[in-house]
Amino acid sequence: MTVFKKAEYQRRIEHTKKLMSERGVDLLMVSHPANLNYLTGYDGWSFYVHQCVLVSLDREEPIWIGRGMDANGARITSFLSNDSIYQYADNYVQSLERHPMHFVADIIKQYGWAQKAIGVEMDQFYFTHRSYVELERSLSEATFKDANALVNWVRVVKSDAEIEMMKIAGTIAEKVMDAAVKHIRPGVRECDAASEIVRAQYAGTPAHGGDYPAIVPLMMAGEKSKTPHLTWTDAPFKKDEAVLLELCGVYNHYHTPIARTIFLGSEPPQLMKDTAKVVIEGLQATLDWIKPGVTAADVEAKWRAAIAHSTVVKESRLGYSIGVNYPPDWGEHTISLRSEDATILKPNMTLHLIPGIWYDEVGFELDASIVLTENGYEPLFTYPMDIVLNP
Amino acid sequence: MTVFKKAEYQRRIEHTKKLMSERGVDLLMVSHPANLNYLTGYDGWSFYVHQCVLVSLDREEPIWIGRGMDANGARITSFLSNDSIYQYADNYVQSLERHPMHFVADIIKQYGWAQKAIGVEMDQFYFTHRSYVELERSLSEATFKDANALVNWVRVVKSDAEIEMMKIAGTIAEKVMDAAVKHIRPGVRECDAASEIVRAQYAGTPAHGGDYPAIVPLMMAGEKSKTPHLTWTDAPFKKDEAVLLELCGVYNHYHTPIARTIFLGSEPPQLMKDTAKVVIEGLQATLDWIKPGVTAADVEAKWRAAIAHSTVVKESRLGYSIGVNYPPDWGEHTISLRSEDATILKPNMTLHLIPGIWYDEVGFELDASIVLTENGYEPLFTYPMDIVLNP
Repeated sequence: MTVFKKAEYQRRIEHTKKLMSERGVDLLMVSHPANLNYLTGYDGWSFYVHQCVLVSLDREEPIWIGRGMDANGARITSFLSNDSIYQYADNYVQSLERHPMHFVADIIKQYGWAQKAIGVEMDQFYFTHRSYVELERSLSEATFKDANALVNWVRVVKSDAEIEMMKIAGTIAEKVMDAAVKHIRPGVRECDAASEIVRAQYAGTPAHGGDYPAIVPLMMAGEKSKTPHLTWTDAPFKKDEAVLLELCGVYNHYHTPIARTIFLGSEPPQLMKDTAKVVIEGLQATLDWIKPGVTAADVEAKWRAAIAHSTVVKESRLGYSIGVNYPPDWGEHTISLRSEDATILKPNMTLHLIPGIWYDEVGFELDASIVLTENGYEPLFTYPMDIVLNP
Repeated sequence: MTVFKKAEYQRRIEHTKKLMSERGVDLLMVSHPANLNYLTGYDGWSFYVHQCVLVSLDREEPIWIGRGMDANGARITSFLSNDSIYQYADNYVQSLERHPMHFVADIIKQYGWAQKAIGVEMDQFYFTHRSYVELERSLSEATFKDANALVNWVRVVKSDAEIEMMKIAGTIAEKVMDAAVKHIRPGVRECDAASEIVRAQYAGTPAHGGDYPAIVPLMMAGEKSKTPHLTWTDAPFKKDEAVLLELCGVYNHYHTPIARTIFLGSEPPQLMKDTAKVVIEGLQATLDWIKPGVTAADVEAKWRAAIAHSTVVKESRLGYSIGVNYPPDWGEHTISLRSEDATILKPNMTLHLIPGIWYDEVGFELDASIVLTENGYEPLFTYPMDIVLNP
């Protein structure tokens, strides 16, 4: 019942073990749901309680540990054999007396790993400070290492099968933006437009059903268009206001983001038009140039040079790596397109370039989701690069 | 632009400060997005980067600290004055060199709080181990205390204005379940039914637009009905299979969950029918009896007694506290209806009773979301308590 063939998961695990060896990690405790899914196929909305996957250099298969009621979900959705699935009792959940990490520590002891070098994801949500404290207390002979984005860095170069998922997600992304453009009109309640957008996200295409996104539709209208990351109200859209959209298509948890700006009139403000022209030309120049072998910092420098003739200033990073993910973020927390990131780009890396610009009066957003090819890039979706006018 | 009047937030802050005093906490650092919203009104999908609200006994207004691009969102959605909003530069985001907690520590120093007793949410997602380590390193003279669910416990008794939100969420919940019952039919793709359910969640009612839920529609069909917490595929529903639904209505982030079981035929398996009868009668007996003054453990004992004549076994907790929330959980992480929870129930507490039963062959779920009144309870939604037959 896994999305990929078992061999794909095995390759991922081998790659993870290789990185573990290089970093002196004997046992890796993976907490982020995207990493659980990536290594085992596990796919349940159980990440609101503590759970993890253990990868040990001396055991072929990873071990899934979660809440008792979710063990059947692990049996159904992962490739793991039954003796690699461990379940803790329900009275560990949000208890003041016991913590799920006590149960995890017991399993670590049982396998003879209590004196090993244990890597944990120290700055990932889903691994709390208390988790660390309880593990450390229970495993006093272990050495703990920060393996924060170790699996995330394995994820950064996609397999061809993953690229296929993201291209399908791209076809869904196009339909999602179509739904937004169709329903975001003056007089329509923001929540009703949001409901049509999310409907398109979940329904997908006739050939490929959609999935839930790691980030709900972000839609900043009117006054809110001077900021990102807000959602909707039940107020109606007004004539001559701007609506910034950060959406995506999702297939089997693979994300292809899509962002555009709608203006609910026929004559956008001059500042928006000027900004759009600079951003679109700058983004296109960056895309025309991007290829394997350059660094993430080089990409940002290219973009900065391309808009240097204008007054547009982009203080935040230009983009980041994308792929399989779960709430609250579709970014992979690896590559950031900014001056200090020396990562060298490779074929089959997938990036979201999102030059959002927010002024005090208005904002503008437009993006590209791409996969790097041998010689350049291929877009993951096709959508006109312009302000959408919905008078 | 806040959802509640400023006085409501001020009461919440006063209550929080009272608990802080009792626990010897001078400065509270709040990380969970529901707690940020509860104390300030802040409402942005920015919780995938580090952010917090600081509550100090010696400062009237809390302080919001977040990423630069989200500061306008804080100005728009919270009641905070501009001098209570601090923004860190974008190169703190997912950086290997610097951490947002360095910025937070600088502000703590600037206000003269570096030697105070600082409470942090040690076992909340959204506060990582690394956050703790960086804070501790930067504030060597501070004393750190675990204030894990401090604000959550303030949230546990709702104001009348909050109860109003949850009743509206209840009217949306009814529409959401109606959409599920309408669209979950043999031959319909699971993803298409999910898309209609989520559409109903976001659209809400003509009077009140819906919001995004902290948990996406959980819908376990066929083989998956022996487990909770799974989502959908693009396979069609089959005749004579069961579909377990964990859904909710949401209004301004206030959640009223609703769970039912659909059977896609006219004759459910005997085991499901028997289980449904026991669960429904047991739940009703528990509801007829529940009132302020009893403990959470008493409620679970009453439920257990009510089903003791049967072979039904419910190993997991019977329910938990609900209210305002953000992904990944609509539970408040305070009251659990189970044998070890001695919390005394009070009027205006809101609970979700969800006796889910999963066998190896099939499962059954049905729930009640309620508010405690002076003498008993009031349901937050009205929906028939039975297996839904969709032949």
